[in-house]
Amino acid sequence: MTTTQQFRSEHDSIGERSLPRDVYYGVQSLRASENFHITGLTMHPEIINSIAEIKKAAAITNAEVGLLDKNVADAIVKACDEITTGNLHDAFIVDPIQGGAGTSLNMNANEVIANRAIELLGGEKGNYTLVNPNDHVNCGQSTNDVFPSAGKMAVLKLLIKAQIQLERLHDALTKKAEEFDDVIKMGRTQLQDAVPIRLGQEFKAYSEAIRRDISRLERAEDEMRCLNMGGTAVGTGINADKMYLERIVPNLSMVSNLRFVQAFNLVDATQNLDGFVAVSGAVKTCAVNLSKMCNDLRLLSSGPRCGLGEINLPPRQNGSSIMPGKVNPVIPEVVNQVAFNIMGNDLTITMAAEAGQLELNAFEPIIFWNLTHAVEFLTYAVNTLTDNCIVDITANRERCKSLVDNSVGIITALTPHIGYQPAADIAKEAIKTGTSVRDLIVQKGILSQDDMEKILDAYSMTTPGISAKELLTH
Amino acid sequence: MTTTQQFRSEHDSIGERSLPRDVYYGVQSLRASENFHITGLTMHPEIINSIAEIKKAAAITNAEVGLLDKNVADAIVKACDEITTGNLHDAFIVDPIQGGAGTSLNMNANEVIANRAIELLGGEKGNYTLVNPNDHVNCGQSTNDVFPSAGKMAVLKLLIKAQIQLERLHDALTKKAEEFDDVIKMGRTQLQDAVPIRLGQEFKAYSEAIRRDISRLERAEDEMRCLNMGGTAVGTGINADKMYLERIVPNLSMVSNLRFVQAFNLVDATQNLDGFVAVSGAVKTCAVNLSKMCNDLRLLSSGPRCGLGEINLPPRQNGSSIMPGKVNPVIPEVVNQVAFNIMGNDLTITMAAEAGQLELNAFEPIIFWNLTHAVEFLTYAVNTLTDNCIVDITANRERCKSLVDNSVGIITALTPHIGYQPAADIAKEAIKTGTSVRDLIVQKGILSQDDMEKILDAYSMTTPGISAKELLTH
Amino acid sequence: MTTTQQFRSEHDSIGERSLPRDVYYGVQSLRASENFHITGLTMHPEIINSIAEIKKAAAITNAEVGLLDKNVADAIVKACDEITTGNLHDAFIVDPIQGGAGTSLNMNANEVIANRAIELLGGEKGNYTLVNPNDHVNCGQSTNDVFPSAGKMAVLKLLIKAQIQLERLHDALTKKAEEFDDVIKMGRTQLQDAVPIRLGQEFKAYSEAIRRDISRLERAEDEMRCLNMGGTAVGTGINADKMYLERIVPNLSMVSNLRFVQAFNLVDATQNLDGFVAVSGAVKTCAVNLSKMCNDLRLLSSGPRCGLGEINLPPRQNGSSIMPGKVNPVIPEVVNQVAFNIMGNDLTITMAAEAGQLELNAFEPIIFWNLTHAVEFLTYAVNTLTDNCIVDITANRERCKSLVDNSVGIITALTPHIGYQPAADIAKEAIKTGTSVRDLIVQKGILSQDDMEKILDAYSMTTPGISAKELLTH
Amino acid sequence: MTTTQQFRSEHDSIGERSLPRDVYYGVQSLRASENFHITGLTMHPEIINSIAEIKKAAAITNAEVGLLDKNVADAIVKACDEITTGNLHDAFIVDPIQGGAGTSLNMNANEVIANRAIELLGGEKGNYTLVNPNDHVNCGQSTNDVFPSAGKMAVLKLLIKAQIQLERLHDALTKKAEEFDDVIKMGRTQLQDAVPIRLGQEFKAYSEAIRRDISRLERAEDEMRCLNMGGTAVGTGINADKMYLERIVPNLSMVSNLRFVQAFNLVDATQNLDGFVAVSGAVKTCAVNLSKMCNDLRLLSSGPRCGLGEINLPPRQNGSSIMPGKVNPVIPEVVNQVAFNIMGNDLTITMAAEAGQLELNAFEPIIFWNLTHAVEFLTYAVNTLTDNCIVDITANRERCKSLVDNSVGIITALTPHIGYQPAADIAKEAIKTGTSVRDLIVQKGILSQDDMEKILDAYSMTTPGISAKELLTH
Repeated sequence: MTTTQQFRSEHDSIGERSLPRDVYYGVQSLRASENFHITGLTMHPEIINSIAEIKKAAAITNAEVGLLDKNVADAIVKACDEITTGNLHDAFIVDPIQGGAGTSLNMNANEVIANRAIELLGGEKGNYTLVNPNDHVNCGQSTNDVFPSAGKMAVLKLLIKAQIQLERLHDALTKKAEEFDDVIKMGRTQLQDAVPIRLGQEFKAYSEAIRRDISRLERAEDEMRCLNMGGTAVGTGINADKMYLERIVPNLSMVSNLRFVQAFNLVDATQNLDGFVAVSGAVKTCAVNLSKMCNDLRLLSSGPRCGLGEINLPPRQNGSSIMPGKVNPVIPEVVNQVAFNIMGNDLTITMAAEAGQLELNAFEPIIFWNLTHAVEFLTYAVNTLTDNCIVDITANRERCKSLVDNSVGIITALTPHIGYQPAADIAKEAIKTGTSVRDLIVQKGILSQDDMEKILDAYSMTTPGISAKELLTH
Repeated sequence: MTTTQQFRSEHDSIGERSLPRDVYYGVQSLRASENFHITGLTMHPEIINSIAEIKKAAAITNAEVGLLDKNVADAIVKACDEITTGNLHDAFIVDPIQGGAGTSLNMNANEVIANRAIELLGGEKGNYTLVNPNDHVNCGQSTNDVFPSAGKMAVLKLLIKAQIQLERLHDALTKKAEEFDDVIKMGRTQLQDAVPIRLGQEFKAYSEAIRRDISRLERAEDEMRCLNMGGTAVGTGINADKMYLERIVPNLSMVSNLRFVQAFNLVDATQNLDGFVAVSGAVKTCAVNLSKMCNDLRLLSSGPRCGLGEINLPPRQNGSSIMPGKVNPVIPEVVNQVAFNIMGNDLTITMAAEAGQLELNAFEPIIFWNLTHAVEFLTYAVNTLTDNCIVDITANRERCKSLVDNSVGIITALTPHIGYQPAADIAKEAIKTGTSVRDLIVQKGILSQDDMEKILDAYSMTTPGISAKELLTH
Repeated sequence: MTTTQQFRSEHDSIGERSLPRDVYYGVQSLRASENFHITGLTMHPEIINSIAEIKKAAAITNAEVGLLDKNVADAIVKACDEITTGNLHDAFIVDPIQGGAGTSLNMNANEVIANRAIELLGGEKGNYTLVNPNDHVNCGQSTNDVFPSAGKMAVLKLLIKAQIQLERLHDALTKKAEEFDDVIKMGRTQLQDAVPIRLGQEFKAYSEAIRRDISRLERAEDEMRCLNMGGTAVGTGINADKMYLERIVPNLSMVSNLRFVQAFNLVDATQNLDGFVAVSGAVKTCAVNLSKMCNDLRLLSSGPRCGLGEINLPPRQNGSSIMPGKVNPVIPEVVNQVAFNIMGNDLTITMAAEAGQLELNAFEPIIFWNLTHAVEFLTYAVNTLTDNCIVDITANRERCKSLVDNSVGIITALTPHIGYQPAADIAKEAIKTGTSVRDLIVQKGILSQDDMEKILDAYSMTTPGISAKELLTH
Repeated sequence: MTTTQQFRSEHDSIGERSLPRDVYYGVQSLRASENFHITGLTMHPEIINSIAEIKKAAAITNAEVGLLDKNVADAIVKACDEITTGNLHDAFIVDPIQGGAGTSLNMNANEVIANRAIELLGGEKGNYTLVNPNDHVNCGQSTNDVFPSAGKMAVLKLLIKAQIQLERLHDALTKKAEEFDDVIKMGRTQLQDAVPIRLGQEFKAYSEAIRRDISRLERAEDEMRCLNMGGTAVGTGINADKMYLERIVPNLSMVSNLRFVQAFNLVDATQNLDGFVAVSGAVKTCAVNLSKMCNDLRLLSSGPRCGLGEINLPPRQNGSSIMPGKVNPVIPEVVNQVAFNIMGNDLTITMAAEAGQLELNAFEPIIFWNLTHAVEFLTYAVNTLTDNCIVDITANRERCKSLVDNSVGIITALTPHIGYQPAADIAKEAIKTGTSVRDLIVQKGILSQDDMEKILDAYSMTTPGISAKELLTH
């Protein structure tokens, strides 16, 4: 076989290039893959799928409005369907971190779809007179509306998956809150003994915080539903047909089976990426709550003998290559790390969004790299947190109880009855002498044993509105 | 006069201290002011006012439910009113960056209010049997519900002021959008000549982005309306009367004239500060849009002779100590800097929120320091941006027009008629030879002069849905 | 008295303005103060002092090379000396956050110095024919070399102060390391019981980390010693005399009593602010170590009865307005917060440095605002940490010992003798049954009592190189 | 074939698990890979290679000191060599983002090496009596000294590669500086016309900044040369033989062919990760300079007809899918994005380093994930920047010259001769009327034509020390 048969030749404004004859990508993809070797990876599959959905919706719309031959449109649609079902992904060769506002990926998609459509129409790859990457596949579009729209679609899909995992976590925490509702333990503020609380109340607080995060993500999803398709190059819709302009977003909703609206102001929607910053902010806020909770879990399970030891996390793997029998809180630890990563992602997204200039923000690729990571890592972290940690947490009830009984902090409940400063004096004496608060109160005749026990009843101390003066109004 | 007359003595659990006889603060404020000398400044006045409103609402509520003597409550209320009308602020001596989760400020407020109330009741400062900082002023409260609530109240008040300025900016931009609606100019993507756009469209895009930011701030405000008052130490409401618990937030809404709700789960609301992160995220997103717009304004007004020179910013001050006649875009520049500062604030707030442990987040002071700065600097920056820049921007219409006429980018409008690659070839030739696109098209006989002019009509190029094929369907 | 007598009139390129007759600042300062009302504060005093030193050095140099009349130069020098001794600071009215790359401050300095020099020469304020703010005070200079140089000088001075406090902290930690050298306690990794360590080793580790930070700050200081004085507007030295160019930096070193060098490439030094980023990075790294140490101190002192309770921090103030007797780790907490703030500062500095364009970075003001805060807050935080916390920390020796005796982690020392998996099995059994490791080993006849005690000797377990096989080689 | 033949069984403290018979990893790797599915990727190959080098050095050392049988040690060494030559990498199955301070990776390495060594000794995989992952491969080690050391080694290797690329960039910029040394162009500060500068000076400034970055990276590398090998679990060296302790780091230097030292204080070196923060800070500072330079390149090449148009970047690929002939600055754009990513990496690294607790920082995995990305992306970005952009930049000399001739900013050179305010008046008139500065000066008889031309000679305006008064001293 000769070289001519193994290779085909393509040219663009830069010049001529030879490509392996059977690859679906073309000259523009090749150049881009040579220009950008940063991660060594390829674009997130959900972005590739989303761009295929956009190309499909555009082909359908262009056919509807008479700008595209029905046969060509059908071939394009079929090629797109192959992509969304997971094929042809290896023809997407451009690095996810790329200069040029996503043109490389859009071109890559145009070329792959064109070449596959050409094949479907019986032609040879590279014969762009049959199906042209720019004039047909990209008809009525610009990278500047296609790429950000694909990014939003992908992020939306990932957010929906994240939400499912957060719901599962919420439910697991709520169940634990019920299971631990009667476990009285010492509350701590600033790591110092404070007043009693129930372990169930702590887990309920975690679940409430997650509930709030879910609501924030839901609102954030709306930011991703607003697309600038139809705006083409700078949002003025140049080269987009009037009818196409009206039908492209409804058609895309239909194709993708997701609810989208067209941005009211396409110029704004083309140049401003604040929606991604807002989404990242919501994801980051969720990471804050998760990390705080995981810090707590690690703290409460510290030990087994020299720590707080109030709860046990399920052992998941040996904790040490040198210390036998050591089991570490590896699952919360990975969540902490994902949270830190998300905070870094948020910063990068913020900087990239700020750096937009005039009619376009060219830094979408780095935003998508970071935001897809942020949402996806969050999803996986929450998944392992729920299944490999939360559901199997157990409480050390005896330990919790003995810490409360032994504590000085219960003195707080006495202040409404004896005053802050006298109570402070007793606390100081208790800590200094090692005597229990109960003993001191009885010794000093401050309260009867009976009244004291009423006031120091741990359950009422943890129940809003029970613990005040009426306790003693017999 | 003897020393005894100039000083009074107070003691707490740490020991005894002498204070100037006529100061309103007490021993605990003094210790705190000595422990924390970080900024050399004092707490934000809106936080001080908010804490006074809380103390007033608590006194009213405690009197209502019979836990506080009417006379004492009245004196406390009067003292609080003096603070909110701007008096006694110099008695708040603690540094805004302080350890201890705000206890120092709460103690400072308790002592100042107690001492002023004592005076109003005819006593001498320091005679805490009349009005006790802890037992009376702090009755039913803990720093852990008072301080975060005061922070939320203050941030809410500042957000409302920010919103007013953003509305003014939005209106100014909208007006400019109308004024510049007919100024055809070159659109640029990635700083390269793209296709025509109207200057009014650019300003309209800015105004739309600000509108979105206002909506986000409004939603963020709701995060600040949810208070944990009544939760006391750890959210279990220990030492808070049942009736007090129900009435404190409604009373606080009445006192402050702002809408607040009590958190559904007080344990959660005491330990999780994600609401502040969410607000900061919204403020940061707004900063992103402002900074991007200001970058554009500086770019578009670059010159006067060697830059883009499409618009003129009003001169506000001499631009250089060495270069005569130089006028710089100082107002947008200060907005950029405030935006960068807000991004730093957001990071600090995020880290502090993440660092909460168990029943409390002790790092509220640094959150408030950063969030009050973020919102307030934003407010001031937007104010000067509107008044000292936006309203007096003018357009260089001739320059804008000549750049469009001279551009190669208009070739884009021809692609639906002649195809992408042929158009690319003409563009390349035009750039290489310096010939105009119009001339080349006519020379080459690609289109009739008449058709070409229709297609290259700049106004239709900037109007969605006009610029496609029907242009030529005579 | 008539208006004319109370006011004087000045004009600049923007137009004419009336000023109070006796103020030292002039029309340009006035405009700037009206344009920028962001913080409501004034520029850091060290920056004002540094700019006065620069103006003094410039006057001396200009007189030396014959560009400035000796009388005028002398008057300028005297005016500058007044500023550096703390006078005239209230005439510096411009906001520290300002647009315009510091021109406002430089103009403010030029006007204040000119007017004071005019007075010293017997003239009336505003009579700029005697001493002109631009032609005389600013002679041979530009904001673009003066302002960044003043910023570097100020930061250098603050870094030197920070270093002194870090040295004190280092010494205090080292002393504690000696004091606690024999306190055997349980080491913890990932919050789980690991193997014994000595409390002194922990404090020694903290002191080593601080030592490293001091070295990094020293290297960072060198970044601030390289000035672009003489570069004037863009680093090409336009309008700077050849002789002036050579002598300005040596003269400035003499005037300020600090070692400075002139940047080798003045164009580079005018536009690139990476030196500030490097300094901020070193400060941030120090903040990381401080925050980690303070987290540890809070953890180790948690309790008093329900926490780790291995050390006691000195009580500095009441810890709670509701919980009597509670004492919190307020000093470490404020250090944590300062650390978080420094991390935010670092981000802002990074973004501002990145945003420089072409010949200048206009965002120096926000860099200086953040970097002076970062270094100064660090200094104050370290100061209070040393004096109000570290020096008075005490150890709970008994508690430390009993935790070690009771631990399972000591099993690690047995692995070289019995193997990892058998040791793991014993550990598991110990945790499950509550039996001590020692008992199990003897019960099972794994080692003789004597050999076991040798291996489990806590001191040798904490001493590198003692704990291996030779222990048993009798 | 039966199941027993296809699978082998292993057990650890968690219990028993079945594994494919021919995999090199073991039960602990399997559990870890199930616990952590975050990135879906595997650990950076340089970390895997580095850990193999450590295991090799440890085996050699343990054999030297008589703790490991020579045969076993030899087999381990051979297995390690196979890894460093690129084999067995697919047996490293654990996710790079993992809980547990790297124990998962260390265990994975121990198991792979043990199983391969067993094979080399003629045994069957899983027969750990021959070579035990913990007792033999991990002998004298702990994850807590192995993993951070491997991370430092990997980062060091990557830094060295980055340095090579930065040197190449520096050289390319220096060459361009020479090539463009005579291209007079307008300097711009705050995007406003300032005074003339030469294009070569601009490129020289870029190259100087890169030179500084290289120096910072070199210093940063030293932070990575200091290892805590020998410290084992908490830095006390428990279970490490005295001789091993002394020889492990020299042996590792020999094995890796890189210069390493043992940390003076192993406890400190085990728990404090500030060295990584310092390295990240240096990388970030470099990113700041790169991003600033790339912003400039994009600005200077803006156009081709409606921008500054002073330089041309080489076209690398079509710039638009819709706008024919458009070529974008894609290479600088990707560098900007990498810079933003590095800033996010730096934040994550900072947060993770701060979060260390007591004897260990468990968050090394996320630090390594971010730092390897930061350094590697930087390397690739600089590589493409040099080869695909810098070396082929050309200057538009005519355009540069005409902008200078036409500018008002040249008036600055006249101020030493006519004073600031008169010069400002001329500038204002020039801008207003459109007349040239030269014409106005001659018209007004301010200077003779001859003197004016001497002063306004563009080359002398750009040369330090020429442009002052002596110009006119005939």
